[in-house]
Amino acid sequence: MGEAQVSLEHLFRVFTKPEHKDSKLAQIEQHLSDNILDFLSQHVVTKKTSLEEVEQDFADAAMPESPEFVSTHAENLLEKLVAHSVNTYSPTFIGHMTSALPYFHLSLSKLLVGLNQNLVKIETSKAFTPLERQVLGMMHNLVYEQSEPFYEQYLHSARHALGAFCSGGTVANITALWVARNKLLGPDSGFSGVARAGLASALRHYNINNLGVLCSKRGHYSLSKAVDLLGIGREGLLTLPCPDQVLDPEKALQAGKAYQEQGNRLLAIVGIGGTTETGHVDPLDELADVAKELGCWFHVDAAWGGATLFSQSYRYIMKGIERADSVTIDAHKQMYVPMGAGMTLFKNPEHANAVRHHAQYILREGSKDLGATTLEGSRNGMAMMVYSSLHILGRRGYELLINQSIDKAKQFAKMIDEHPDFELVTSPTLSLLTYRVCPQSVQQTLLALPAGKAQRLNGKVDRLVVNVQKLQREAGKSFVSRTRLESPTYGAYPITVFRVVLANPLTTVADLKAILQEQHDIAMRNRVWQDLTLSGEPLANVVNN
Amino acid sequence: MGEAQVSLEHLFRVFTKPEHKDSKLAQIEQHLSDNILDFLSQHVVTKKTSLEEVEQDFADAAMPESPEFVSTHAENLLEKLVAHSVNTYSPTFIGHMTSALPYFHLSLSKLLVGLNQNLVKIETSKAFTPLERQVLGMMHNLVYEQSEPFYEQYLHSARHALGAFCSGGTVANITALWVARNKLLGPDSGFSGVARAGLASALRHYNINNLGVLCSKRGHYSLSKAVDLLGIGREGLLTLPCPDQVLDPEKALQAGKAYQEQGNRLLAIVGIGGTTETGHVDPLDELADVAKELGCWFHVDAAWGGATLFSQSYRYIMKGIERADSVTIDAHKQMYVPMGAGMTLFKNPEHANAVRHHAQYILREGSKDLGATTLEGSRNGMAMMVYSSLHILGRRGYELLINQSIDKAKQFAKMIDEHPDFELVTSPTLSLLTYRVCPQSVQQTLLALPAGKAQRLNGKVDRLVVNVQKLQREAGKSFVSRTRLESPTYGAYPITVFRVVLANPLTTVADLKAILQEQHDIAMRNRVWQDLTLSGEPLANVVNN
Repeated sequence: MGEAQVSLEHLFRVFTKPEHKDSKLAQIEQHLSDNILDFLSQHVVTKKTSLEEVEQDFADAAMPESPEFVSTHAENLLEKLVAHSVNTYSPTFIGHMTSALPYFHLSLSKLLVGLNQNLVKIETSKAFTPLERQVLGMMHNLVYEQSEPFYEQYLHSARHALGAFCSGGTVANITALWVARNKLLGPDSGFSGVARAGLASALRHYNINNLGVLCSKRGHYSLSKAVDLLGIGREGLLTLPCPDQVLDPEKALQAGKAYQEQGNRLLAIVGIGGTTETGHVDPLDELADVAKELGCWFHVDAAWGGATLFSQSYRYIMKGIERADSVTIDAHKQMYVPMGAGMTLFKNPEHANAVRHHAQYILREGSKDLGATTLEGSRNGMAMMVYSSLHILGRRGYELLINQSIDKAKQFAKMIDEHPDFELVTSPTLSLLTYRVCPQSVQQTLLALPAGKAQRLNGKVDRLVVNVQKLQREAGKSFVSRTRLESPTYGAYPITVFRVVLANPLTTVADLKAILQEQHDIAMRNRVWQDLTLSGEPLANVVNN
Repeated sequence: MGEAQVSLEHLFRVFTKPEHKDSKLAQIEQHLSDNILDFLSQHVVTKKTSLEEVEQDFADAAMPESPEFVSTHAENLLEKLVAHSVNTYSPTFIGHMTSALPYFHLSLSKLLVGLNQNLVKIETSKAFTPLERQVLGMMHNLVYEQSEPFYEQYLHSARHALGAFCSGGTVANITALWVARNKLLGPDSGFSGVARAGLASALRHYNINNLGVLCSKRGHYSLSKAVDLLGIGREGLLTLPCPDQVLDPEKALQAGKAYQEQGNRLLAIVGIGGTTETGHVDPLDELADVAKELGCWFHVDAAWGGATLFSQSYRYIMKGIERADSVTIDAHKQMYVPMGAGMTLFKNPEHANAVRHHAQYILREGSKDLGATTLEGSRNGMAMMVYSSLHILGRRGYELLINQSIDKAKQFAKMIDEHPDFELVTSPTLSLLTYRVCPQSVQQTLLALPAGKAQRLNGKVDRLVVNVQKLQREAGKSFVSRTRLESPTYGAYPITVFRVVLANPLTTVADLKAILQEQHDIAMRNRVWQDLTLSGEPLANVVNN
């Protein structure tokens, strides 16, 4: 039953003999190479399977005892795993930031594993180290546009770093705030610095009550992880309400001042360059002024929106990002690189030294080993994927991709706006938008209602939105996500909305039309819709109670 | 000149049209599939190229403006990157923990990128989520051997986690100590816990001067990063000298007691399950007793050695690991999975809740989204590689791999011991060992010298070892690394040694013989060797001064 023999000879074959061209695994590869969309639509089962059902296939914690033939295993993978994975390449999967990738990444991923470099040190990566530094330099250049001599001086300097490559935006944000914390509370006369002496001693030495990080309520949850991890504590994450989806500079300044007047110290303001939920961009230039006035670090989380800088047409949206002390960009988002390519960029190439570590057998003093200033240790050569993408697509290629995403989002917003039973909740700044389904008559009723009653009715609409989102996902043809947020229309309480990310270049306007139509059909068949519209009874209850 | 046109049509082709079968990239893939060792030996240039020369190819920080044809780019990659990367598959590359990988990973990596799942949440990973949980369960089972009902209860429980998958051992160690810190300084009457209130408040509330982590001097540098990051500070990492390469439980207990008597609190003892430098394993069972007596967390960093548990013959070396509160294992080390597969395992499935985070649009309360208890956010489906390896190799396959590595290390140690001009410095516990080249006459002189003079002479031998290691690396046929460590023979000061990791199953005893021979040849031709042996002059100077 697919059991392979257990012998060293068999094992050596696994390491040295390629799979036969007709083997199952080779067939999978070939199908992927020939037509990935066809492979996915053939193997990913779209019909509803509950997570609990899928868990049945992964329920045993016993370690497999005997080897299994590769081909037997490949069959199992197709049946149990691929069949119940998510078709992120699908043009109608527009609910999250994961999307189709360019074809060349399939081949490059094979090369990456074939080379199996470890970028923590030069001895296991050699050319990959300068390559990664160059990629960081190019991205630094995209954000900060420094002079040629600047990059000549710092790109390959053993004592400097233009940024840190990492697995994703969360580690990038943590790295940025780690550097900020260690810079702010660095060594001083009679004090060895927070990195050595710890946070409690540092706060005592610098006579600081609490340390805080300020951002809008749309700040990514990684910021909350970061302040927890760094010992600042989640109460130190000061999140300001943002009914307009962006951080108000005036309010940020007031809040920062009030915070500091109580003997606290603001470590950083985090401006968001594309919120995860709605794609809004904080007024970065004005926030840079606020950070300057408060004397704190300015970090921009542009994990999503950083790639907007490739576009001459839309670059203006990110104005002020070049004044940030550090910037997070994820290449696995709008740069269409496989998962695992995050970056923090540092305006000042000396700042990364605040987190520099050495070891005897590697990362020796004066070495160019990348691991000395990254949070992670051993890492793969994912920077190659970014390098190749930058070359194969070029700035102008990325520009087209960014432009068409934003333009498509605007078209979709228009469609929603024009449909009587849909409400656009947030317009696209970048290629994200949120909206909801809500029968026209209910929209009119809502406008006429006093706040308290409107809230109760909106609670009912929330249920409709949740139902439609779930039923649509289960139908398997398309996927939008959902979230809860405050909208300018309905005041201070949050409502539930559909969230759409138009990242996939393969998504067409016809796809979007079909998605709206599908949602409308599902909604009209839903019990809550009927409650809301058909019988006047329950609605009247809500309105009149 | 390889410039592709900039049009949306061209870009869509990059996303939708596979490379032609005769394209350069397809050729690279084919060569990798057919014979990876041949691909590497044909394309990786072994002759000496300085890092500075390689940097010339990656010197420009200007963003590429126009798209490049994929095939042109693939040529460039071969010439600039692959040629100057490191052949980690080579059987004579025995200096680090990076090695050849089984063939099937080449195909699986392509499948992984083709599926492009994001494991932060079920909506972008579906079956990958239960798969990752199962992998963590199997590894938990390997370490902790709990009952079937235990795994039935916890494997897929939304409120529990048997571990956290991450990019590597560094993040795994940080995660373990993060959980330990948040558990120790958790919520209490009138206190919201360190995660919310921060470390300074927590230490005040619990009336603790300083927080400490104790390990031997061989503790991995990631522990130093961890205490820095967590706000404990590097001074809080108490590293005890270990002339025998392992942490002495008696001394650990004394040091821990003395530390706590000063109003400090020991957060954790870290036992090492295979040190990075010599492969030694701390006496884990006794350290578990010490941790119990001191009332602190017990973490085992088994990033390297964890896979020893697959071997019935050598499992005993890790005895006591099952008493650890948390264990780090890297699948990209002795489990032969591509880079990027670290894990922390938690004995108690509730502990991970100490770092649980939620967000509105994902990681909702009660969801099984993996991102709620991992340090990282978006992550790729690397767990599939571990899953497939566990099935295709099986426990018994891994057992054979582990056994042959350790047995080979023992054979190599014997060879070194028997050679008059080599000294074995640390014997292999696992598949690592350290040694040095030192002319027989000098070895005899050293034994007869008083400590101070022996140290000066050893300084000269150090230089020989450094020279040989560098020249061998530059010659490009083989690679061993080097480090500095205290040896039992020469007392308290460190000496420079060759460090060998026998991870690659393709390395033969004949390869090892050839490596020793090459080192001996290089050494005998070296000026320092001649200084040490030929003319009595400089040696006499050292000895008589």
